[in-house]
Amino acid sequence: MRKDLDRYMQEQDIDALWISGAAQNNPDMVYFTGIHHVSSADLIKVRGQEAILFYNSMEREEAAKTGLQLIGYDEKYPIRKYFQAAGGDHVKAIALRYQDIFTDFGIHNKTVAIAGKYDLSAFYAMVSAIKELLPEINFIGFVMESSIKLARLTKGQEEIDHIRKMGKVTTEVVAKTADFLCNCAVKQDFLVDGDGAPVTVGLVKSMIRRWLAEQGADNPEDTIFSIGRDAGIPHSSGNDQDRLELGKTIVYDIFPCEAGGGYFYDFTRTWCLGYASDEVQKVYQDVFAVHQAMLKSFRTNTPFRDYQAETCRMFRELGYTTVEEEPECVEGYVHSLGHGLGLDVHESPFSGLGAGARDILQPGMVFTNEPGLYFPSKGYGVRIEDTVYLNEKGKIEVLADFPYQLILPVKG
Amino acid sequence: MRKDLDRYMQEQDIDALWISGAAQNNPDMVYFTGIHHVSSADLIKVRGQEAILFYNSMEREEAAKTGLQLIGYDEKYPIRKYFQAAGGDHVKAIALRYQDIFTDFGIHNKTVAIAGKYDLSAFYAMVSAIKELLPEINFIGFVMESSIKLARLTKGQEEIDHIRKMGKVTTEVVAKTADFLCNCAVKQDFLVDGDGAPVTVGLVKSMIRRWLAEQGADNPEDTIFSIGRDAGIPHSSGNDQDRLELGKTIVYDIFPCEAGGGYFYDFTRTWCLGYASDEVQKVYQDVFAVHQAMLKSFRTNTPFRDYQAETCRMFRELGYTTVEEEPECVEGYVHSLGHGLGLDVHESPFSGLGAGARDILQPGMVFTNEPGLYFPSKGYGVRIEDTVYLNEKGKIEVLADFPYQLILPVKG
Repeated sequence: MRKDLDRYMQEQDIDALWISGAAQNNPDMVYFTGIHHVSSADLIKVRGQEAILFYNSMEREEAAKTGLQLIGYDEKYPIRKYFQAAGGDHVKAIALRYQDIFTDFGIHNKTVAIAGKYDLSAFYAMVSAIKELLPEINFIGFVMESSIKLARLTKGQEEIDHIRKMGKVTTEVVAKTADFLCNCAVKQDFLVDGDGAPVTVGLVKSMIRRWLAEQGADNPEDTIFSIGRDAGIPHSSGNDQDRLELGKTIVYDIFPCEAGGGYFYDFTRTWCLGYASDEVQKVYQDVFAVHQAMLKSFRTNTPFRDYQAETCRMFRELGYTTVEEEPECVEGYVHSLGHGLGLDVHESPFSGLGAGARDILQPGMVFTNEPGLYFPSKGYGVRIEDTVYLNEKGKIEVLADFPYQLILPVKG
Repeated sequence: MRKDLDRYMQEQDIDALWISGAAQNNPDMVYFTGIHHVSSADLIKVRGQEAILFYNSMEREEAAKTGLQLIGYDEKYPIRKYFQAAGGDHVKAIALRYQDIFTDFGIHNKTVAIAGKYDLSAFYAMVSAIKELLPEINFIGFVMESSIKLARLTKGQEEIDHIRKMGKVTTEVVAKTADFLCNCAVKQDFLVDGDGAPVTVGLVKSMIRRWLAEQGADNPEDTIFSIGRDAGIPHSSGNDQDRLELGKTIVYDIFPCEAGGGYFYDFTRTWCLGYASDEVQKVYQDVFAVHQAMLKSFRTNTPFRDYQAETCRMFRELGYTTVEEEPECVEGYVHSLGHGLGLDVHESPFSGLGAGARDILQPGMVFTNEPGLYFPSKGYGVRIEDTVYLNEKGKIEVLADFPYQLILPVKG
C-alpha cells in the first residue's frame, strides 16, 4: 500500500523516485496523480518527502486537479533558457533542465529509481545525456520489484472501491451481452439479426465497446470473444467474421479499465448457445470444480505458485495434460492460474514461472482465479475467471458476482 | 516513409532496431505490426533485412496476423531454460535470453537503436543487465530523430487512407454532437434534457465516447469540450459539471485514434450556442483569417516554424500578445501553430520551440493547422483546427471537411 512506499525505498536504498510520462495510461504515475489530462509531466518523490509534480503551464488546471504539490516547468525551469544554453540541441537542453532539477532536489549524486511508461528511445537518450552531466547519479530500474510495484502489490480501501466499481461495470456489460444473445433469432444453427443476417463476433465486440464507453470504461487491450477453435487458444481475441453457431464454446474474457488508464477488472465466462456436447459439459464441470476449489483454498502467507501447482495436480488427476509436466503444451491446462491486477491488468502477484519471493498472498491483494482447459484440435476451450480480493481479515471476496452458466438458452 | 528506413539507419550508423512492448498502443511497434493483440513482444530489424517479430506461443495466432516473419520465444528461446541458467533470477534470465537472441542475429557487438513504449523501470533494468553480459553492444536512443521517427515523418498512401478514415469518423461524431446540441431544449440561458435537467459537459463527453466506440475508435487522451473560462485554457479538458450556457465559447478539440492505438485525427471547432458577443465574433474572425491564410501558404521545403513566426506576426498586427514576444503569456496567442500527427497525436514535424532541422514541410507530411486566441480572464477562448496533408504533388489537402461556424442555432 501507499503507506509502505518509503519503507520499500529504504529497504532498496532508493533516495528518490523519478516517474516520467503522462498522468493517464501510465500506471506508476496514475498511482500518485489519479487520471488527469496532463500529457507531459515528471514526478519526483524524495524518500520521506511528499511527491512533487512538474507540469507545463498549458496544463496547469489539469495538474492542479491531482492535488499534489506542483512545480511549473515554465515558471521555474523554462525550456527556452535551456535551449539557448544548449545551442539549440534538444536532448542537451532537456538534460540541462533535469540537471538543475535533480541538483535543486539534492539527488544529483544519489540513487534514483526510474518509473513510468514512455517512449523508450527518447527516454534512453535523455537518461544517457543526464548521466553525462551528472556522472555520480545512480539510475536504477526493476523488472518486477520496484518500490512502487511493491507498494502496489497490496491495495487500500479506496483502490478496492475503484476495482469493485469496475467489476460492476464489467458484469453489467456481460449481462447485457448475454441478454442480447438470448434474444437473437436463430436460423439453421447460428444467430441472426432482425434482417436475417448472421450475428458475428465483430458485431458483438462493437456492442461491448459501446456499452463500456457509455459507462466511462476503456478496453485498451480489447476484449476476447472467441468461438470454437479460437476459444481453444487462450489469447486469441476472436475472429470478427465468425458467426455465432449454437453448441460451440464461446470464451468471453473482458478486462476493461477506468477511462484514461485507471483500475482494471478481469473476468471470463464460457458459454455455449442453446446446447453443449457431453464432452464440453464434462470439461466445463472440471474447470468449475478447480475454480471453486481454488477459491476456497486461497490463504494468507501462501505462495501464489502453490495454487498453480495444486491446479496442475487436480487437472492431472482428472486426466488432462498440464504445463507442469509439459511446459510448451497447447492442449489441456496451458497457462497459469492467475495474476494480480490493479492499475495494470497483469501485475504482481504472479502464479506462474516468473513468480518470485514477493508473490505470496497477503491481505490487500487483488488477483484473478482463472483455470481453463483448451483443445484447439477439437475446436473448443473453457475458462472461468473471477477477480478476487484477499481482504484485511484474510478472507477471500469475489469482487463482482455473476452466475456460472455454460449454456445460454436461445430463442425457438 | 517506410522505404526510407534503411537509408536513415545507414545515415545514423544504426546496425539494428530493437522495438519492445505490445503490438498495440505502441506507435513504433504498430508501425511495423499493425494493431494486433500481442501483449508482449520484441521486434528486431537488422539494417537491410526484414523485421522479425518475437512472440509468446499463447499469442501465436495474433502474431501471425501481423504478416511478419516470426520467431516463437517458447520454441527457440524458452524462458524456463534461462530461469534455470540464472538460478531463478528473473532479470538475469531475461538478459541471458536477449544475449542469445542478439548473438544469433550478430548484433551483440553492434549499435542497436532502442524503440517502443514500455515500463521504463523494467526496461532500464533489462538494458542494464544486457549491457553487463554484452559490454560491446552500443544501445542508442533519440528524443525526436530516431530512424523510425524520421521514416514516420512522411506518410505513404496506405497511412493517409487510415488518417482520412479517422477524419471521417471524427467529423461524423462532431456532426452528431452539433445535431444533439441544436435539438436540446433551452431553459433560461442553458440547454436542458427531456426531463428539464441541465445538459452538462460530462453528458456530452459520455455521448462522444459512445459515438467514437461505436465507430471502432479510441480516445486515449479524452476529448476537450470546455466552455467559458475553461475554453480560455488551451489544454483544459472541460469540467464535467458545467452547464451548456448560451453565448459562451465552447472549444471542442477531438483527437481519437483507431482502436488499439492506430492512426489519429485531430480537429477543433469553437462554438457558441444561440449567439455570440461582438467581441467573441471579432476574435473568431481573426482566428479564422489566420487559419485560412496559413492553409493557403503551406509550401514544400519551408520550415514549419516559419508559419509559427508568420502566425505570430499576423496576430500581433491584429493587436494580440503572442508567445514570440512574451514566451510565458497565458492571454492571446499562447501556443504553436501545429504539429505532425500519425501513430502519435503529437509527432514531428513541430512548429514551436522544439522544432529542429528536420521539421521542414515535405510531401507526405500530415500536420495540424490550429491557430487560437485565449482570454481566460474574460472567460473565453477560440481555436480552429484541421488536419492537413501535403500531398505528393506538394498541394495541401484538408483531410476531412467540416463547416466553420461559430454560432450553433438552438431551439426556441
